[in-house]
Amino acid sequence: MPRLNGAAAAGVAPFDLADRGLTLGDGLFETIAVFDGRPAALDAHLDRMVEAAAEIRLPVDRGLLETEVAALAGEGGDAVLRLTVTRGAGARGLAIPEGGAPTVIAARAPFPFAALGAPIQLATVSVQRNPTSFASRAKTLSYLDSVLAYDEARRAGADDALMLNIHGRAASTSMANLFALFGRTLATPPVAEGVLPGIVRRLVLKLAPALGLTPLERPLTRAELSDADAVFATNSVRLLMPVTALDGARLAEETGVITALAEAVREACGAPRKG
Amino acid sequence: MPRLNGAAAAGVAPFDLADRGLTLGDGLFETIAVFDGRPAALDAHLDRMVEAAAEIRLPVDRGLLETEVAALAGEGGDAVLRLTVTRGAGARGLAIPEGGAPTVIAARAPFPFAALGAPIQLATVSVQRNPTSFASRAKTLSYLDSVLAYDEARRAGADDALMLNIHGRAASTSMANLFALFGRTLATPPVAEGVLPGIVRRLVLKLAPALGLTPLERPLTRAELSDADAVFATNSVRLLMPVTALDGARLAEETGVITALAEAVREACGAPRKG
Repeated sequence: MPRLNGAAAAGVAPFDLADRGLTLGDGLFETIAVFDGRPAALDAHLDRMVEAAAEIRLPVDRGLLETEVAALAGEGGDAVLRLTVTRGAGARGLAIPEGGAPTVIAARAPFPFAALGAPIQLATVSVQRNPTSFASRAKTLSYLDSVLAYDEARRAGADDALMLNIHGRAASTSMANLFALFGRTLATPPVAEGVLPGIVRRLVLKLAPALGLTPLERPLTRAELSDADAVFATNSVRLLMPVTALDGARLAEETGVITALAEAVREACGAPRKG
Repeated sequence: MPRLNGAAAAGVAPFDLADRGLTLGDGLFETIAVFDGRPAALDAHLDRMVEAAAEIRLPVDRGLLETEVAALAGEGGDAVLRLTVTRGAGARGLAIPEGGAPTVIAARAPFPFAALGAPIQLATVSVQRNPTSFASRAKTLSYLDSVLAYDEARRAGADDALMLNIHGRAASTSMANLFALFGRTLATPPVAEGVLPGIVRRLVLKLAPALGLTPLERPLTRAELSDADAVFATNSVRLLMPVTALDGARLAEETGVITALAEAVREACGAPRKG
């Protein structure tokens, strides 16, 4: 059962209909994998949420976030936790209320093992990521662009979207960062391209050198994805997903080092070995 | 008291914490002025919401929306109604649930007469409007860009934001459409520039010819705003607001025809005469 403001709650719970998370998408969330009762990369997730909250003047209590995660992870087993923080209730209008009390929601879902590491095909969608928007580089409750990007890709017969940014360059999927391998160089777009500073993205950049790869943050074009030796996507639940096709055209699939990297990511996150 | 799914509800009401309006900003809203018990431009508001909903495959019941507005407007007097429709509850993840039931919330607030027609000063902000995003041209629950634009402008000492679009051209404020007067030509950016198709915007375009003005939808630069004979902003609550300054520099204020236009808008909306 979920938790609301520090206490267990029913799925349908007393909630303020003037909560700005609901009325204005004014809030943040994190999605955290739990393997065998242990939340993966918990500090990195909480750091990211607390830093993003500070940037939008949303006062979050990190201690409460830790308590809520511990309460749900403590049930043991494998799961996905979602931690949501909203601005709390406010009067009509856009003005950020001073002294408002954030709303904190924590929820637990079964871990979707079928998606973990599963290969995906991408379709380029119409909505582009906007680096001038805070929402392009934080996990905010204003997530409709990603919802519609995902929907457009699925309706095109793909598994996920290739989202370009407003400069027409490759940015990310609707829910995951992108990497492209060129020889021994592993490139991913910088956050300034309008991408989320992903937790697994950072982990891959850190693990790459030990596998003989040179990680590099630089802008990537769609054409470069087509020409790469391998393309993969990363997020905190599915970890490392090989991208096998783009807009119906098959991509190259270097398997040796990418397989090793995927295994290193699983290990670092405490996920079960593939098999 | 607000209404939730067709019935009166307390401000804090039983609500599904997995509602996608709350978790993903997946929904729409309308803000409707009520003068003397009569909702202004109700059909235009409901048309816009129903059309936007169809575009994102959100099945809304127009009859229910009408019932909810009538219930709150029927209390009489002057008010602002907010009508919110969300995708309803969904499983974890972005996929739009098939056959889901939308959530409908209606709320009533006192009419803010102090803001009606009040002159405003604008400050240019960093976040730019993205015409590739559905959220740039619909009133969606993913409204954080506007929240942060407004906040940035207020912190700069202005009343509202000048939001440019990703091409660097003038688009709108955080909550209102923009018009600029050049001689007898009245220009406003087209929706393709990343602006909301505002209800009062459309009304102004319709009323302008009777006042000897030639309305024109065309892109506007920030420099053109500075050089215009008058600049004003429009939305469904504040109606027509003269813009008196931009980034601390005073703007020209043609008063004759703009005052007449403001009065015509008030009359068309059933708002009380100024004075």
